[in-house]
Amino acid sequence: MTVELITIGAELLSGHTLNTNALYVGDQLAKVGLTLARQIAIPDDHDVIVEAIRESLARADWVIVSGGLGPTNDDVTKKAIARVFDRPLIFHQDILDNLKARFARAKRPISALLDTQALQPRDAEFIPNAVGTALGIILSDKGRTLIAVPGVPREMQPMIADHIVPRIAEQARVTTQTITWSTAGWTESRLYETLEPLLEKHADVSVAFLPSALGVRVRFAASGADATRLLNPFTEEARILIGPAVYAEEDIGLEAVIGRLLTERQMTLALAESCTGGLIAKRLTDVPGASAYVVAGYVTYANEAKTDLLGVDPELIAAQGAVSEPVARAMADGALRRSGADCTIAVTGIAGPDGGTEEKPVGTVWLASAIKGRETETKEIHLLGNRQMIRLRASQAALNMLRLRLLNQTTGDW
Amino acid sequence: MTVELITIGAELLSGHTLNTNALYVGDQLAKVGLTLARQIAIPDDHDVIVEAIRESLARADWVIVSGGLGPTNDDVTKKAIARVFDRPLIFHQDILDNLKARFARAKRPISALLDTQALQPRDAEFIPNAVGTALGIILSDKGRTLIAVPGVPREMQPMIADHIVPRIAEQARVTTQTITWSTAGWTESRLYETLEPLLEKHADVSVAFLPSALGVRVRFAASGADATRLLNPFTEEARILIGPAVYAEEDIGLEAVIGRLLTERQMTLALAESCTGGLIAKRLTDVPGASAYVVAGYVTYANEAKTDLLGVDPELIAAQGAVSEPVARAMADGALRRSGADCTIAVTGIAGPDGGTEEKPVGTVWLASAIKGRETETKEIHLLGNRQMIRLRASQAALNMLRLRLLNQTTGDW
Repeated sequence: MTVELITIGAELLSGHTLNTNALYVGDQLAKVGLTLARQIAIPDDHDVIVEAIRESLARADWVIVSGGLGPTNDDVTKKAIARVFDRPLIFHQDILDNLKARFARAKRPISALLDTQALQPRDAEFIPNAVGTALGIILSDKGRTLIAVPGVPREMQPMIADHIVPRIAEQARVTTQTITWSTAGWTESRLYETLEPLLEKHADVSVAFLPSALGVRVRFAASGADATRLLNPFTEEARILIGPAVYAEEDIGLEAVIGRLLTERQMTLALAESCTGGLIAKRLTDVPGASAYVVAGYVTYANEAKTDLLGVDPELIAAQGAVSEPVARAMADGALRRSGADCTIAVTGIAGPDGGTEEKPVGTVWLASAIKGRETETKEIHLLGNRQMIRLRASQAALNMLRLRLLNQTTGDW
Repeated sequence: MTVELITIGAELLSGHTLNTNALYVGDQLAKVGLTLARQIAIPDDHDVIVEAIRESLARADWVIVSGGLGPTNDDVTKKAIARVFDRPLIFHQDILDNLKARFARAKRPISALLDTQALQPRDAEFIPNAVGTALGIILSDKGRTLIAVPGVPREMQPMIADHIVPRIAEQARVTTQTITWSTAGWTESRLYETLEPLLEKHADVSVAFLPSALGVRVRFAASGADATRLLNPFTEEARILIGPAVYAEEDIGLEAVIGRLLTERQMTLALAESCTGGLIAKRLTDVPGASAYVVAGYVTYANEAKTDLLGVDPELIAAQGAVSEPVARAMADGALRRSGADCTIAVTGIAGPDGGTEEKPVGTVWLASAIKGRETETKEIHLLGNRQMIRLRASQAALNMLRLRLLNQTTGDW
């Protein structure tokens, strides 16, 4: 069962847009044990698209095309598909009616360009789009299937995860089972070295390490009718070896785990952020329902704000510096006192590119966490990377510190 | 002059690694007015690489291959190149001597694997590698040129920027010029419809629309000795038609534009965020040096926080609802008063997926902006999309509202 991906859009070739869709499709296929055989990026050019689709259909059982389904003139994917499959675009009144009803409900103006989104190849199957206006399109011929999805990640992703990958997996009769764990605080090398004895012992289970700025996901895979029986003893042993690094035995963000922990404990949280500048609050409130536990966030980027918003003693800041243990502690305590929340996280550090010194280089970050009725804890970490990476990693370290404290585990590693 | 890029590596297809090399090569070519015609990702498979190189050489004048030049057994690019060009790999004593001398100077142990790096196609030209051990390789035949570079970004990038792109640009005598504008608040459809008369009038200028959750970038391109003379009158007319939507006549984020405007005016800013939950503060502080103008951020996700942190009257919230004009106004005014900043942005809305009503559906957002000595302004917008998209778009609308006010323009459109 071969799958190829054609990503369409000049922006992918002109250095403007990272091809995150290719990453996403590859990852979703890998989760069910399938591999993308090839990925091709081409511009919004009718003839080039026609040629590329024909070539891919000659090699692959499934061809996924992303991009070029919008209503403007450079969105030519539908015309190219119609040409390849020799099925004209016809007007679908029901599609237009649905779009108009959705726009009316959302109180949005209805553009004449919506009509274009109702022009679709004859005898196609459609995948709904809850976010945007372009439907996913499925066309099959001679045992080969072409799937077209929008290029906008938020529109494309649910179509891939909920409709396309399950369908390919079913047809491929894949027997591979995978389990993905999310870790924070350990490097890829450390995870690998720690798991190494297990890898030698269980040759039937393969392990992949998927690093990102936020941590390493570890994916275990086994195939065949025995897949579950192979995976279970493996993960039991793995849990003992790398357990302290695993923040979830699934593929989710740390912000969602914190949300669950706080909800279970009926606790509320406030944030006090300096160098992360709102990133931790942003991440926590990415999770629907976060209003149940995120009470308040204080972005105290300036020293005056640390004093005004959190009551940090200006003399303390002058004496110790804004990036210091006592200031982090005072921020966490101040946020607890002023917000009335049950617990807090505070972060102050040097994200760079400027502001580093010999003693406190760029990447120096102090974390603090206050919990009602418990001792406030602090922790110094040193992070590598550019400004964005340091901010991301600092947000992750802070969330992980709170997670470990809520679980009454030591906050030793980072 | 056509250029294609073949990126080699299973990690690019399995959802492990974002293809940043494709972005880099595209960007470097775009900087000299060249466009990557196609990018292909394939696994480390000898036969697949041979086939892909042959196909690309049949279409393109230049084919760049990245990845698979390392010394381990799955790095098969050199063998594939040798096959395509029918030139055997021969041992180059001078290459090995150079590598050994470099390793000796750096006091690094010399591995037998270095020998593999001295095996190179006959009659090739080499590009030095100051970082790693794999040389870049250039082979030409029948007017087509193949260039192979390592996949490791810090080894590949100097080869592309310093050797390869200058050489292609010289041979191509490139004449294309591009201009990219960043817009906010208008849909791709509206931009297209508004520019349509201009597109018909100026057939020599091409326009691409590059949409993202934050807005649409519009790129104008023209070629030939006349490129500038073609682009200038076009952009002058375009400025009149879509000017209100253009927040920068370059490709940058709105947070950077706000930073410039505040710096020029020596003004400071505070944020009052409900549904965006810290996202606006996070975006502004993504910009290095933001500490000069971002004073404080209040993430007042809970109603109590709106009262405690910003002094919003709880009876007002009870009477009007947290998502309402008077509450947005009170948040902006409260942030101005409490932070001492020169201006503020406040956002309160329903990001979903829950919390919507018939009267205030998901996507309903109230914005407010207070500026010292001026009337506070408010604005209701309705946004489409999932939670993340509504939050991103609300942050963009709020930043754009502030931008227009700082420029004394009307804040009419969104």
